[in-house]
Amino acid sequence: MTRAFVIDTDTASDDAVALIMALRWPDVDVKAITVVAGNVPVEQATNNALYTVELSGNDVPVYMGASKPLTRIYEDAQWFHGKDGLGDQGYPAPTRQAEAKHAVDALIDTIKANPGIVLVTLGPLTNVALAVSRAPEIVPLVSRCVVMGGAACTVGNVTPAAEYNIWVDPEAARIVFLSGLPIEMVGWELCRGDANLRENDIKYVRSLDTALAHFTIDCNSVAMNSNFVQSNELGIALPDPVTMAVALDPEGVVTKASKHYVEIECVSDLTRGMTVVDQLDVTHDERNQRQWAQAYQKPKNATVVWEINIARWKEILFSVLK
Amino acid sequence: MTRAFVIDTDTASDDAVALIMALRWPDVDVKAITVVAGNVPVEQATNNALYTVELSGNDVPVYMGASKPLTRIYEDAQWFHGKDGLGDQGYPAPTRQAEAKHAVDALIDTIKANPGIVLVTLGPLTNVALAVSRAPEIVPLVSRCVVMGGAACTVGNVTPAAEYNIWVDPEAARIVFLSGLPIEMVGWELCRGDANLRENDIKYVRSLDTALAHFTIDCNSVAMNSNFVQSNELGIALPDPVTMAVALDPEGVVTKASKHYVEIECVSDLTRGMTVVDQLDVTHDERNQRQWAQAYQKPKNATVVWEINIARWKEILFSVLK
Amino acid sequence: MTRAFVIDTDTASDDAVALIMALRWPDVDVKAITVVAGNVPVEQATNNALYTVELSGNDVPVYMGASKPLTRIYEDAQWFHGKDGLGDQGYPAPTRQAEAKHAVDALIDTIKANPGIVLVTLGPLTNVALAVSRAPEIVPLVSRCVVMGGAACTVGNVTPAAEYNIWVDPEAARIVFLSGLPIEMVGWELCRGDANLRENDIKYVRSLDTALAHFTIDCNSVAMNSNFVQSNELGIALPDPVTMAVALDPEGVVTKASKHYVEIECVSDLTRGMTVVDQLDVTHDERNQRQWAQAYQKPKNATVVWEINIARWKEILFSVLK
Amino acid sequence: MTRAFVIDTDTASDDAVALIMALRWPDVDVKAITVVAGNVPVEQATNNALYTVELSGNDVPVYMGASKPLTRIYEDAQWFHGKDGLGDQGYPAPTRQAEAKHAVDALIDTIKANPGIVLVTLGPLTNVALAVSRAPEIVPLVSRCVVMGGAACTVGNVTPAAEYNIWVDPEAARIVFLSGLPIEMVGWELCRGDANLRENDIKYVRSLDTALAHFTIDCNSVAMNSNFVQSNELGIALPDPVTMAVALDPEGVVTKASKHYVEIECVSDLTRGMTVVDQLDVTHDERNQRQWAQAYQKPKNATVVWEINIARWKEILFSVLK
Repeated sequence: MTRAFVIDTDTASDDAVALIMALRWPDVDVKAITVVAGNVPVEQATNNALYTVELSGNDVPVYMGASKPLTRIYEDAQWFHGKDGLGDQGYPAPTRQAEAKHAVDALIDTIKANPGIVLVTLGPLTNVALAVSRAPEIVPLVSRCVVMGGAACTVGNVTPAAEYNIWVDPEAARIVFLSGLPIEMVGWELCRGDANLRENDIKYVRSLDTALAHFTIDCNSVAMNSNFVQSNELGIALPDPVTMAVALDPEGVVTKASKHYVEIECVSDLTRGMTVVDQLDVTHDERNQRQWAQAYQKPKNATVVWEINIARWKEILFSVLK
Repeated sequence: MTRAFVIDTDTASDDAVALIMALRWPDVDVKAITVVAGNVPVEQATNNALYTVELSGNDVPVYMGASKPLTRIYEDAQWFHGKDGLGDQGYPAPTRQAEAKHAVDALIDTIKANPGIVLVTLGPLTNVALAVSRAPEIVPLVSRCVVMGGAACTVGNVTPAAEYNIWVDPEAARIVFLSGLPIEMVGWELCRGDANLRENDIKYVRSLDTALAHFTIDCNSVAMNSNFVQSNELGIALPDPVTMAVALDPEGVVTKASKHYVEIECVSDLTRGMTVVDQLDVTHDERNQRQWAQAYQKPKNATVVWEINIARWKEILFSVLK
Repeated sequence: MTRAFVIDTDTASDDAVALIMALRWPDVDVKAITVVAGNVPVEQATNNALYTVELSGNDVPVYMGASKPLTRIYEDAQWFHGKDGLGDQGYPAPTRQAEAKHAVDALIDTIKANPGIVLVTLGPLTNVALAVSRAPEIVPLVSRCVVMGGAACTVGNVTPAAEYNIWVDPEAARIVFLSGLPIEMVGWELCRGDANLRENDIKYVRSLDTALAHFTIDCNSVAMNSNFVQSNELGIALPDPVTMAVALDPEGVVTKASKHYVEIECVSDLTRGMTVVDQLDVTHDERNQRQWAQAYQKPKNATVVWEINIARWKEILFSVLK
Repeated sequence: MTRAFVIDTDTASDDAVALIMALRWPDVDVKAITVVAGNVPVEQATNNALYTVELSGNDVPVYMGASKPLTRIYEDAQWFHGKDGLGDQGYPAPTRQAEAKHAVDALIDTIKANPGIVLVTLGPLTNVALAVSRAPEIVPLVSRCVVMGGAACTVGNVTPAAEYNIWVDPEAARIVFLSGLPIEMVGWELCRGDANLRENDIKYVRSLDTALAHFTIDCNSVAMNSNFVQSNELGIALPDPVTMAVALDPEGVVTKASKHYVEIECVSDLTRGMTVVDQLDVTHDERNQRQWAQAYQKPKNATVVWEINIARWKEILFSVLK
């Protein structure tokens, strides 16, 4: 019995590794990969997704989608991932092409054709927002919506308040978070510290000596440097693969999670794209009613992952690279 | 050789304990106490300050100040501290009265008369904002401005994004944080967890059997319940006394601190009053320039306290209650 | 030689009259009518559009679209137009049904099939925003995008700052105004004052004694009262028909128009949905660069209609009701 | 029986003319002039005020106040008025100096000493905001607060949404407009069109051949050019003198005015400093309650001047220059 997945991705180096994980996971059947502008422009991201699918020996269809955020100016993250998003290793062009259908239509059709499907999002939420706005009837057909995005009550990466995926298209994120989709939020902080691939992890991956293993390290070489510049951390930070590990094996990976009201900041430039997590559930305390009137008694809309089993997440990664 | 202090306070139960600490600390000379609306209305807070000063056997002048935030509707915190702010114990009225001079004028005059003075703020920053706006020449005369306020890269108490003192008058906080005053920010998170007065701490304080010791526990009885309601923590949370401990003995109390650009959110209702701390110093990375243009190369304006020596903070508290 | 039109509408009483005008105008061929939630819920609006098309003796396809704004809570205007949006006259259900295709897809397909088409929008811009986000390639295929919406440097109707169509989905409006579509903005102020159907106009329409003439007055009976309540004006205010008159006969109707940078306010609750028209073109004056940095040298994106020939607009209306 | 006036001004060319009008008006006794940063830095503005007082043969005390807005970066308007604010005519330094007392204290003391006084504000509202925040008890002592500021339901001058005085310190304006002061708002639009000093008016003033007459034209020479650049209007625009005319002779000058709820936009950069005038009083219509919840049933706080008698305003000006 396999589980159907659909993955929306702005394919750069860590997305690529996450795609490999899903494509090679035993009981998962990836029905479609939809691509969105984010880390790199959507054409490059589509090429990267196609290349990664080929490298994984798979032929899942790949669909190109939105080339920019709903209302904001598009800002990429090429300084972080390399100009091509894959560490500028000079990978060849993929042999397959993206399907003719638009990613938004592909999301709608794939979800309708696979009730109970798991939706994993690895990039800005533009495509998903357009899909649920155009076809809200898909919302109850999604069993889990695992989102790489945000920072739960901690510092962001692109600004002190926000993580890149949410920051770059906060209106889209807000549409998705408030859509009724069963959000599982995996913030970027879960890939920090010991969740980084450390020197010994990297050595171990290299020792596997498979094409996928080398690709995993090579395509993240620029990102490894950027991680040090940004967070002063030695190692490869892999937010998308951590998220995919949560999607693949929630029981094994998630050690602490709880459901809360989560809002997305769309008003202020200073805190743009912040995932405001009501960790103490003050929303539901009438004593705070006047202090936070807009949120009073709003429903808990997202399961926030607070802690993961780091050994298990790395074990999952290693297993698919063998 | 004594150190001159001036303390601005919205005197409720934890402020009262902080005042006692300063008033009884060996090398500190409290020149003036200025009062602002916050936890309780300014008249009540002024009475509470006068009562606490008397109880401490002191006669420092107390000045009443702003009765509401600069531009926002005033919201108190009486549900947290009790209707009188001191746990509704039925304390008698103070025998002394507040001085005729306004707190803003008192702040200006006291600072001018005591160059190098330490300013400790325990409430909303309305008075201080009015003082530095009216008389910016006092800024370089303050050697330290120790602020109880905000939440550094963590959840707030009044909303998920904000701590009460900053939330209630964010414009005032913004004026003060950007004024050039040498801010030392002590967030509410530093009084959480083991920094709470736990059951054994409370027993120990009771065992001291002084008027000040009993007052410390009694006046916080309502706040202790509120703390459990709000944060699910057993114990008395004492943000103002923790802050005062930082002011009295920074070397002994502060174990981790660093200077950053800190901005105050004044635009969005959702994140109103957030202390946005640039912990990763992305402000100074030109690669993030377009992502956070408004903050690019803004100066580091506040020393953020990240960790305290909990044993030392409690030792300081206990010592003044004997 | 006919001109192709596609009309997006939240069909209530004044939309209905505008539809009649387009459907009966000699050289215009309405290819599709797409419906959006606005004055009334989208199902009701779709029924109203179908009913109006039938009454006009036409069989243009009608497509149902978005049932709520992109990110905002949906607020209708039923108090203004009557519960059914058509003055609660008890009109029968339409005999035809809406097409199966979604309005957003219909907009995309109709525009692609008719390069050079005129797009007229009479409601919130949700459908159009979703269409241009999903398929930006349609933008250059639209020859004119005539928008009933906004208030150009004057008071709004739903708030002092904003007109209803823009207010109710400001993010959608912003997407459309900044999409590159050749916007012609017809603000609600153009239907005020003498542009209202006055008592003598109403008598004249009644005297035409056609089904369409009576329908025009009857379905606006509730709106006529609401107009008096809202603006203290005696008469029927017809923003959508005025807009359609501009679309049908720009040379005859528009007496003053100019192209400017127009932005949509999406940040503030107070001014939400304001159409900020740079009437004095300060955007292009480098002396104002620091004062309005965000807008400096932004392109002029909308032709704002400032004045109309009122006699000509009424003449157009009367001609189609005969 | 004279009327006591206190005037707050960022003295540049049009302020200077307004000061002359008040200083030379028969039944008006100007008790104090307080100066604020605005058109020019506060030191320059103070010098300009002193110079103008001397030229008028008066010795009213002049007090220097706030050198920047409450929370915003200070932006001057020197390109409009000339580097010295007085058309760069090389006027000599004044012989008198400003008083030692701060403008904010002077406002408080002057108002307390003259219950019923008329407050006229010609610049940003920083000083007045600090005064009413520090001493709210002065509010009921002011009989009229005539404000040059804003744009009532029309385009602004510094941005499409805002007039300079309000734009430059919107938080101060908000404090003042919501303080309870009896605001009479005179928007910049009232000095446009025929209210400009046209060529024949300028010739007439020159023909008076007094020092004050020549000064009036000379000091506005740069502003006259700027007016053409900004608004394409030939003539000298005199917002402050028009405001002073309203203050001096409201019965003669004001031909249309009404009281409304007026809010100041402080949240959005796009519409920063807009004076949102509820001209249609939708605030008080329960049918709009959900649409404009924040303003529902807010009190009418300002009398908005909509039209003036242009001949009378010019007559007042001419009379004081003879």
